[in-house]
Amino acid sequence: MKVVALAGGVGGAKLVDGLAQVLPEDSLTVIVNTGDDFEHLGLRICPDLDTVCYTLAGIANPVTGWGRAGETWHALEALDQLGGPAWFRLGDYDLGVHLERTRLLSIGKTLSQICQHFCSIWEIKPHVLPMSDYQVATIVHSDEGDLPFQDYFVKRRCEPQVSGFSFEGAGQANPAPGVLEGINNADLIVICPSNPWVSIDPILAVQEIKSAIVNRDNGTPVIAVSPIIQGKTIKGPAAKMFSELGINPSASNVAKHYGSLQERGFLSGFVIDDLDVNERASIDKLGLSSIVTNTIMKTEEDRKELANVILRYAGLHFEL
Amino acid sequence: MKVVALAGGVGGAKLVDGLAQVLPEDSLTVIVNTGDDFEHLGLRICPDLDTVCYTLAGIANPVTGWGRAGETWHALEALDQLGGPAWFRLGDYDLGVHLERTRLLSIGKTLSQICQHFCSIWEIKPHVLPMSDYQVATIVHSDEGDLPFQDYFVKRRCEPQVSGFSFEGAGQANPAPGVLEGINNADLIVICPSNPWVSIDPILAVQEIKSAIVNRDNGTPVIAVSPIIQGKTIKGPAAKMFSELGINPSASNVAKHYGSLQERGFLSGFVIDDLDVNERASIDKLGLSSIVTNTIMKTEEDRKELANVILRYAGLHFEL
Repeated sequence: MKVVALAGGVGGAKLVDGLAQVLPEDSLTVIVNTGDDFEHLGLRICPDLDTVCYTLAGIANPVTGWGRAGETWHALEALDQLGGPAWFRLGDYDLGVHLERTRLLSIGKTLSQICQHFCSIWEIKPHVLPMSDYQVATIVHSDEGDLPFQDYFVKRRCEPQVSGFSFEGAGQANPAPGVLEGINNADLIVICPSNPWVSIDPILAVQEIKSAIVNRDNGTPVIAVSPIIQGKTIKGPAAKMFSELGINPSASNVAKHYGSLQERGFLSGFVIDDLDVNERASIDKLGLSSIVTNTIMKTEEDRKELANVILRYAGLHFEL
Repeated sequence: MKVVALAGGVGGAKLVDGLAQVLPEDSLTVIVNTGDDFEHLGLRICPDLDTVCYTLAGIANPVTGWGRAGETWHALEALDQLGGPAWFRLGDYDLGVHLERTRLLSIGKTLSQICQHFCSIWEIKPHVLPMSDYQVATIVHSDEGDLPFQDYFVKRRCEPQVSGFSFEGAGQANPAPGVLEGINNADLIVICPSNPWVSIDPILAVQEIKSAIVNRDNGTPVIAVSPIIQGKTIKGPAAKMFSELGINPSASNVAKHYGSLQERGFLSGFVIDDLDVNERASIDKLGLSSIVTNTIMKTEEDRKELANVILRYAGLHFEL
């Protein structure tokens, strides 16, 4: 059984980790958002790719969910003392990764080659792929103007009111090697509980990826997990974004955002949290199958349990 | 009284620190070798400038003499784990400095502006100047070919046999702002106990600096401190270099290397260690004044004491 997961930040990484633990080796491909990537202090920084890899490698910071376990901040401290731009929290171990990635890019390696190389050293079993080797930049349209994603997310702490998003370079970006093969060979595609606007949509902004999913063999289910629970998120600005865009932040509106196959979207099934059982009626109206389960991943066990629930759901309802 | 010191690595930094402690504020200008500077991992690294500044700021590693006190090596550890080039030991605090310097260079600041900015934050009183804002690169000619300085010094641990040196870019390099004014207004010029071949010579390879010293008002003494004691150095490859170039490593041969004024060199006086008292006869033959004192700076007190001895020597013998 081949599973493809589309993932962004911390929530996505947790589910990916659960899937990696319950699936047989070699059956999971993860397509990761790189719309958050940016150049900072001359370094190429890929927050979502690193969050997924650190999590799968077991070296993620268990408290923050991003960054590395046992991290120190001495380089940033020195830079800050000198009046340098310390708003983006770069830990020392993390910095070593950015330095090596930047060096490898400078000698002509692609992001996906570098990712594969790092995954091999970190003994990461799933195939982790950036969505593209081309640079795609998520731009947040806001009441403070158009902001590069990290300026909005980190520097401005998601305070500006958003009015929309664009993905610079997505029109020209090809999927990274392995992405289309992964989708075309998948028995199941999982959309992780990541921010729809800025974690999943950038991936789908790469046209060939979206086409491959939308035009897939109808037998391959696409199951999304709602990142919105009770109108809120565990982490990140997804709920705030829905509100500012004039959409009630609810699990059913996440489902509407992706759209059911019936409505020319691409979802086959949807996973909502136990706390959102009353959302089912609205989801039914979309002609979309759904299940209710615990989606809050506090422990390692929760990750595996959610992964197992999704796999059972896929097997039972979509006859894998 | 205005004093100018020419300095390179650890020994130079120690004497500069002694001078800074015994001289009144605003009377010391330090001209630092930048021939060791190089680009590594996309960063501009200035080892001698940093050694001098860290020492003067009181944040140098007291054990190694270079790098920072309380340093950690996490970024390098992460880079090393990924198979990156970890041969050049970059500590985390140190890295923060290189990141900010590189960023400031990338937005058009000059090395001397950046140095002044860092010195002001680190509350360094002496005027610390890079020899030039232009890049000059020390090249070591060796039995393994021409090696960039850090390849010879760090990567190859000074093992190749040297046959000479060149200073790429020195012909086009102007002295940094303040360097010529410092020399022209100096009452005393001190050549620190730094490596003559690769710490002091690169500074003198900037033609206007050498001319300003050689053609100075005769009243301004130039006093050098021998980095060679008993045919050896406290640190670094100077003695090995003398030998490989077919010159006996001795204090008197350091004096010969710089040359006395009488011989169209530029030294007025020379300081040798107590252990090298038998070198005086050869130095006398050069028509060069000399004194014998302890030049081994093990403690803070030793630094100040040597600085005081040099100042007294300059005052007594050269009627400052």
